[in-house]
Amino acid sequence: MVTFEEISPADFFYRNRDIAGFTNPVRAIFSALRELVENALDATDLSGVPSEVYIRLSHDNDTELGDDVYRLRIGDNGCGIPARHIPSAFGQVLFGSKYKLKQARGTFGLGGTMAILYGQITTHKPVNIVSSTGTSRIYKYALMIDIQRNRPLILDRTIQINKEQWHGTFIEFSLEGDYSRAMPKILEYLKQTALVTPYANITFVDPKGRLYKFTRVTTKTPPPPKETLPHPYGVDVETMQRLQRITDCQTMPDFMQKHFHRVGETISLSFLDFAGFIRTSDPKNLKGEDISRLVKAIKKNKKKGKNGFSHNLSVKEMQHFIRNTQSGNLVDFMKTHFKGVEKSVILRLLHAAGFIRTKAPRKLRSDEIVKLVRMMKKFDGFLPPDASCLSPLGEDLLKVGILKELKPEYIVVSQRKPSTYSGHPFIVETAIAYGGDIPAKDDILIYRFANRIPLLYDEASDICVKVIRSMNWRRYKVSPSMPIVILVHICSTKVPYKTVGKEFIADRPEVKKEVLNGLREVARQLQHFLTKKEYVARERRRLDVFSKYLPKIAKFSTNLAGKEKEPNIKVLLRSARKFED
Amino acid sequence: MVTFEEISPADFFYRNRDIAGFTNPVRAIFSALRELVENALDATDLSGVPSEVYIRLSHDNDTELGDDVYRLRIGDNGCGIPARHIPSAFGQVLFGSKYKLKQARGTFGLGGTMAILYGQITTHKPVNIVSSTGTSRIYKYALMIDIQRNRPLILDRTIQINKEQWHGTFIEFSLEGDYSRAMPKILEYLKQTALVTPYANITFVDPKGRLYKFTRVTTKTPPPPKETLPHPYGVDVETMQRLQRITDCQTMPDFMQKHFHRVGETISLSFLDFAGFIRTSDPKNLKGEDISRLVKAIKKNKKKGKNGFSHNLSVKEMQHFIRNTQSGNLVDFMKTHFKGVEKSVILRLLHAAGFIRTKAPRKLRSDEIVKLVRMMKKFDGFLPPDASCLSPLGEDLLKVGILKELKPEYIVVSQRKPSTYSGHPFIVETAIAYGGDIPAKDDILIYRFANRIPLLYDEASDICVKVIRSMNWRRYKVSPSMPIVILVHICSTKVPYKTVGKEFIADRPEVKKEVLNGLREVARQLQHFLTKKEYVARERRRLDVFSKYLPKIAKFSTNLAGKEKEPNIKVLLRSARKFED
Repeated sequence: MVTFEEISPADFFYRNRDIAGFTNPVRAIFSALRELVENALDATDLSGVPSEVYIRLSHDNDTELGDDVYRLRIGDNGCGIPARHIPSAFGQVLFGSKYKLKQARGTFGLGGTMAILYGQITTHKPVNIVSSTGTSRIYKYALMIDIQRNRPLILDRTIQINKEQWHGTFIEFSLEGDYSRAMPKILEYLKQTALVTPYANITFVDPKGRLYKFTRVTTKTPPPPKETLPHPYGVDVETMQRLQRITDCQTMPDFMQKHFHRVGETISLSFLDFAGFIRTSDPKNLKGEDISRLVKAIKKNKKKGKNGFSHNLSVKEMQHFIRNTQSGNLVDFMKTHFKGVEKSVILRLLHAAGFIRTKAPRKLRSDEIVKLVRMMKKFDGFLPPDASCLSPLGEDLLKVGILKELKPEYIVVSQRKPSTYSGHPFIVETAIAYGGDIPAKDDILIYRFANRIPLLYDEASDICVKVIRSMNWRRYKVSPSMPIVILVHICSTKVPYKTVGKEFIADRPEVKKEVLNGLREVARQLQHFLTKKEYVARERRRLDVFSKYLPKIAKFSTNLAGKEKEPNIKVLLRSARKFED
Repeated sequence: MVTFEEISPADFFYRNRDIAGFTNPVRAIFSALRELVENALDATDLSGVPSEVYIRLSHDNDTELGDDVYRLRIGDNGCGIPARHIPSAFGQVLFGSKYKLKQARGTFGLGGTMAILYGQITTHKPVNIVSSTGTSRIYKYALMIDIQRNRPLILDRTIQINKEQWHGTFIEFSLEGDYSRAMPKILEYLKQTALVTPYANITFVDPKGRLYKFTRVTTKTPPPPKETLPHPYGVDVETMQRLQRITDCQTMPDFMQKHFHRVGETISLSFLDFAGFIRTSDPKNLKGEDISRLVKAIKKNKKKGKNGFSHNLSVKEMQHFIRNTQSGNLVDFMKTHFKGVEKSVILRLLHAAGFIRTKAPRKLRSDEIVKLVRMMKKFDGFLPPDASCLSPLGEDLLKVGILKELKPEYIVVSQRKPSTYSGHPFIVETAIAYGGDIPAKDDILIYRFANRIPLLYDEASDICVKVIRSMNWRRYKVSPSMPIVILVHICSTKVPYKTVGKEFIADRPEVKKEVLNGLREVARQLQHFLTKKEYVARERRRLDVFSKYLPKIAKFSTNLAGKEKEPNIKVLLRSARKFED
């Protein structure tokens, strides 16, 4: 009857390749090239030298296989892959270096292996990999994938001496495809990649031997993206459990500060107090030495004066206070007796003086973990994520890239301030280019980028396109037939892609808002430009009429006045032209 | 520097839940409900009794957790799950019964577990499962998922006596969500599910205690979908290797017939000959007994007469032929000497008489497997996939479903003939409903279905919507403000979804063509209806004018003629109204 089975992740993606962007021979060759170019660029970003990416696509000479089989070779001067990881990095699905909270082009740890897997199932040939991290050795592998077990099969392995300390990776394999139909998308992809990576040299040799070179126009690279800690707002029970299992922190304040993004001592204490994870003694149970320690701590504290801590507080007074208090714990007691002092100051003071006790993180029960996570979402005292871990392109590089690839008459770019969704920081960059070499089409051209990769498919479902379509462009003097390119770049430690093939971005309200604001900004500037342009055109038309009739009028008036010498109309015309400057 | 790690499939989908349709609390509660309803309906389709699905969504009473936590309970009278598979079926990603070539609602073996996983990470509570396959026992489990290891954790297991031989499954778990915002989509989903499953009773109790009942209008169920073999056109090297590894066939013709869809003896031989996998002896090497066996086989064959096989062929004649032939193998020899006989007849004859030798499938080398697969794609003699394994709804059930849920004035439905893409059979059903209870909106309503599930998200990227938008509806007298619902249902052993969340269907040219033709068919019929309707409306207006003035004209004419009795105009009006019938 019904039979059950377990399949490996490699098997899953083998059976469902539509999901990863390998729908047909056209899409497959595009996706394979793209995934490997993105891995190459990620690797060069880490190596700190300006990117060199070499791509060669050629017909496979194996005549047995037929015309639609290609060999794809992609090389980079990136950081290379440590020898022991090479087999798994290319021969195992869901194995990778991309599972960190960090801005990267690849995000699923899947694309490169998927390309190789596709090559294998269509041609059954091994993939060849050459890589070095710049050590004294270069490693060469020939691999295949055991799809059912999701494990690499090493067919061959050789080691060479690396005299020149070369670092980088070369990958070469065969795959079925349809280059002639994929060509427009591939070239568009490379052009847009060059636009958004103006510090990279990209060379592409196509199957007909045509050479496409995208040369860098700057060696200035954006700062490399940094790894970051999870933000408390984005943490769920599973993440909390994993942290709790591996932490070596003994107290909750330490745990909070060590494992979460932008949580310092004050915030950790305020949060733990809010969440009910802090215990302090009943003041009545304090011993003599405790009380003098507390008084000493108060005296040392800088918060003094009226309603604050008193300079002259004596142990005796404190004992008196304690005897008469009705508070059952130290925090409340302090709050009642030093009204002008903020709670956070009290908490820090008590913590520093050793009056605050928390459970050891590793001893939290599972219901306490759930509660901790819930309270994290409710607490409003956490700082917003810091976007310094992000690496947007920046307005200058964006401008340079657009100028280089589109050669427009006018550009305006804008970088929004960092924002966040579900605890993930993100930055939106927008640009509009007008005129020059941009062709006037039926509709406005839209370039979409995420973490510096162009998105070329499923445009209609993308949040950026939805926002652009929802805007009233006539307000900005834009009409559909104008030669305009609108560009949106979203970078984040986690781009909310809707598909494994990285085709389009999900409808997150926070992202939507930023995209809209970014677009409005550039649209307004474009409007000024277009208004001025319109004015100039109008004035020029007026002046043309002027310069046509003025000589005749001058002559006629001279005759009429009975004079002989006509006035110098050149001076007049010159002054009228001044507005053009 | 760069660190590498392996993650489990559960971990992958935990980290990338946007991909599986669990983007935010609104989508999550929709997706969870939907995935489990679809599993329930799949299970009831297998049990052979009309479906009963019970859904209850209620606030979780656990006040610790807050208002946005719900308990979801879904039950069905389906085939149940064998006890030993229950933990993995619900507690392990990529474990399931859905990996067969068979039409099913669920296709990734992922949805149900993903819903449970989402519940676990947002509430950290176990899932409770009750199931029986109709045996003497009912099994109850409390489970959680070890996400990092992708394994179920069994917290509790009890067994009950099943006196009434109940079969089915109940699942209950807690999850975070936003029901009030998800409600419209959930109700729309249930309504469309009821439309496309008119043989199911679906009961939904929502968190406010409101009861929604979708009652079956028929007990006639479509035939249950059947499992099928892979079609040669859709086979790749990996599939071929797997078959080769497990087969017990000793010869290639047997192998082809046993493991592939619609491959019989004749086709298997023609193909293997085409692909170069058949060897026959050199006629010159035949021994005497071989020759008489061959002659006997020829005489037994029915293909006789002119240019065919001769009745009177003697062994002597044959020996003479063989002596003088230049052909190096038996097939060529036979082809040359019996010109009127088709090659396939010769192959079958030689095969039956034991003159054809092939390798044992298990001994094929890997390059031979690649060649076999390539030749399969090139051979044009395979039969198209048989769609009898599919279970479309059928025109009657579709009509009943639409009438029940939409109550239109007019319906037209159409079922296209089976077609195929990449070796997968599929059938497109289309319908248009007009008027009645259908509201007139700004735009035409589109209902999309695949394997009997409604698709409600990412409409703009769906192939059906693209086709509808590309059609010139004015030609069919349709204007956007008309009260119209257009419905497309695609069923296949493999629906080419673009996303794991089953939101929309990829752009396969074969599918596109069928959808277009199906829509044209129903659009043309709608056009006839609308034309007739227009005519009726026009005639009625004319008649209204008639019946208003006719009495006056009658009276006036009577006076004018000097008569007293007016003619009976009722008879006249009645005859004019006849066209309305």
